[in-house]
Amino acid sequence: MQKKLNVVPFVSVENMMRLVLDIGIETCIAQIADCIEDDFRRWPEFDKTPRIASHSHEGVIELMPTSDGVDYGFKYVNGHPKNMKDGLQTVTAFGLLASVDTGYPVLLSEMTILTALRTAATSGVATKYLARKGSRTLALIGNGAQSEFQALGLKRICGIDTVRLYDIDSTATQKCAANLAGSGLAVVVCTSPEEAIQGADVVTTCTADKQYATILTDNMVGAGLHINGIGGDCPGKTEIHRDILLRSDIFVEYPEQTRVEGDIQQLDADHPVKELWQVITGDVQGREDDRAITLFDGVGFAIEDFSALRWLRDALKGSTRFAELDMIADPDDPRDLFGMVERERARMM
Amino acid sequence: MQKKLNVVPFVSVENMMRLVLDIGIETCIAQIADCIEDDFRRWPEFDKTPRIASHSHEGVIELMPTSDGVDYGFKYVNGHPKNMKDGLQTVTAFGLLASVDTGYPVLLSEMTILTALRTAATSGVATKYLARKGSRTLALIGNGAQSEFQALGLKRICGIDTVRLYDIDSTATQKCAANLAGSGLAVVVCTSPEEAIQGADVVTTCTADKQYATILTDNMVGAGLHINGIGGDCPGKTEIHRDILLRSDIFVEYPEQTRVEGDIQQLDADHPVKELWQVITGDVQGREDDRAITLFDGVGFAIEDFSALRWLRDALKGSTRFAELDMIADPDDPRDLFGMVERERARMM
Repeated sequence: MQKKLNVVPFVSVENMMRLVLDIGIETCIAQIADCIEDDFRRWPEFDKTPRIASHSHEGVIELMPTSDGVDYGFKYVNGHPKNMKDGLQTVTAFGLLASVDTGYPVLLSEMTILTALRTAATSGVATKYLARKGSRTLALIGNGAQSEFQALGLKRICGIDTVRLYDIDSTATQKCAANLAGSGLAVVVCTSPEEAIQGADVVTTCTADKQYATILTDNMVGAGLHINGIGGDCPGKTEIHRDILLRSDIFVEYPEQTRVEGDIQQLDADHPVKELWQVITGDVQGREDDRAITLFDGVGFAIEDFSALRWLRDALKGSTRFAELDMIADPDDPRDLFGMVERERARMM
Repeated sequence: MQKKLNVVPFVSVENMMRLVLDIGIETCIAQIADCIEDDFRRWPEFDKTPRIASHSHEGVIELMPTSDGVDYGFKYVNGHPKNMKDGLQTVTAFGLLASVDTGYPVLLSEMTILTALRTAATSGVATKYLARKGSRTLALIGNGAQSEFQALGLKRICGIDTVRLYDIDSTATQKCAANLAGSGLAVVVCTSPEEAIQGADVVTTCTADKQYATILTDNMVGAGLHINGIGGDCPGKTEIHRDILLRSDIFVEYPEQTRVEGDIQQLDADHPVKELWQVITGDVQGREDDRAITLFDGVGFAIEDFSALRWLRDALKGSTRFAELDMIADPDDPRDLFGMVERERARMM
């Protein structure tokens, strides 16, 4: 069978939803977490660069490329907090996987849904390595588009059985609680961050304001907590009070990027942080003891998207959840691009 | 009419060919040249960065983003010289235009054909501003995928009426000559670069080897010539002998990028060069006199792709040469991405 050189498989939003439902949301997150863990374990093999950001008054558009020398992947992603009031997504994304050997794209996909899955998967990996053993209760502060995925990811990967929800907008909390009904998680609706955090082993903050916010303040955080700070992910956007950072062991994806975008942008540029991948390889200790406060200052790194895209490529095998996109010019003679265009004239008649 | 928020217009290779034939190849190049000239004229308005390259042994994959504060564009492009022997394109590309205000993509397109058009358009703009008045004869060295577009672009934009063709592979020259038959250009097939350049007012070099080549040597280049050096466009890939560079007035797109990728990578980092956009605005003199040798060391810059994409967006108005791609997740409630996925379950039954 001749391979169609002009065709790039494309996963639309509809096909992504259907593929995820075919497999199961929790299983998808767990499988992506395995891919992320594998890729973090071979971290030095990757070309790494901080994301390339184009900032404007209203938000940011970013490109996040990486490569392991065999595959090349990148994601396009925007962050526009004001979009929500216009009925648009704060974050939309799509991504591409290509062959390093030929430079040809091999997969194009929506990545709004896939990013929610991989962000939950990353929190799952961080929590698995950093939270106290036997952690069962998650406080989820910020109940927007990421929240249910975080809850299900930490349930499946880390054994969380209870979520305590808080959002500044109570309708978001109601939406999240309704979506998690029947998930097997005990859901507790809270009316303040202080209430949400009571008795929590793990906190995930995933709020969307583009400003220096302090969702978590110092007096709220007791010994032994693990925090996933997910929403502080661009310059000028933080969620966690500086005093908490100073009491925490801080773990990051890629320091060069996190120091600019993460909650640690509030700290000195040489404040000690540990890299999550080195905890996974065993080169760096994760949690020191049961009283330590651990903070994963997650901003989202290109390798996680790469992991998600290669998961998707494998998940599509034997599936029909993709379309064929005529994206690559493929003249019979590679030197004859012009002739290919001219010959199309006859087919137009 | 409700705008479909999930949809991104997509121009496939087939639709691009048909659109270009609808409009006419020469007219497309001329219209894109007008867009490039307009955008170069407002150069300081653009976010500029050297392209983000991922190099491997076999080639390079690059992302080329830019923005004028209203629109954001980027191109994905690879360069893999060894692809040709496997029946693949050396260069393939696709690109995207997005709204800075919302971060939403507004156009996705193949850009292999569009890049050939914009590269010809850029050479046309450079030649219009830098070649001697009354230039009529073009030597085209390298008769591969770019060559016919260069010839037609310079015909339309600069009044070239004769092309003298040379390629190290004579079958490429035959292909180019056949494609240009009936174009209105007088075509002269040559058997050496020296022969091709005889009597030429303008030379375009567009060869594809990834190595330090010297397609043009010093004794070949006489007074008054304008050279478009198009094929020397990545580290380790040059076409023009250093001695010619030292005798030439050199014009570039974006010095920070050209010093790494262009033929001037052979020169000291502080060798004086002029920026084409400043010639267009009139801030910098182009050609000094009829005996000067002018060299446009073109490597391809993100703004040219931006110009080509915004041309395409306008050219599509009233046209059916695009498809609608379901690429943006668009939940009824932007905070309810999870609910959107779950609700798809009912539609799958």
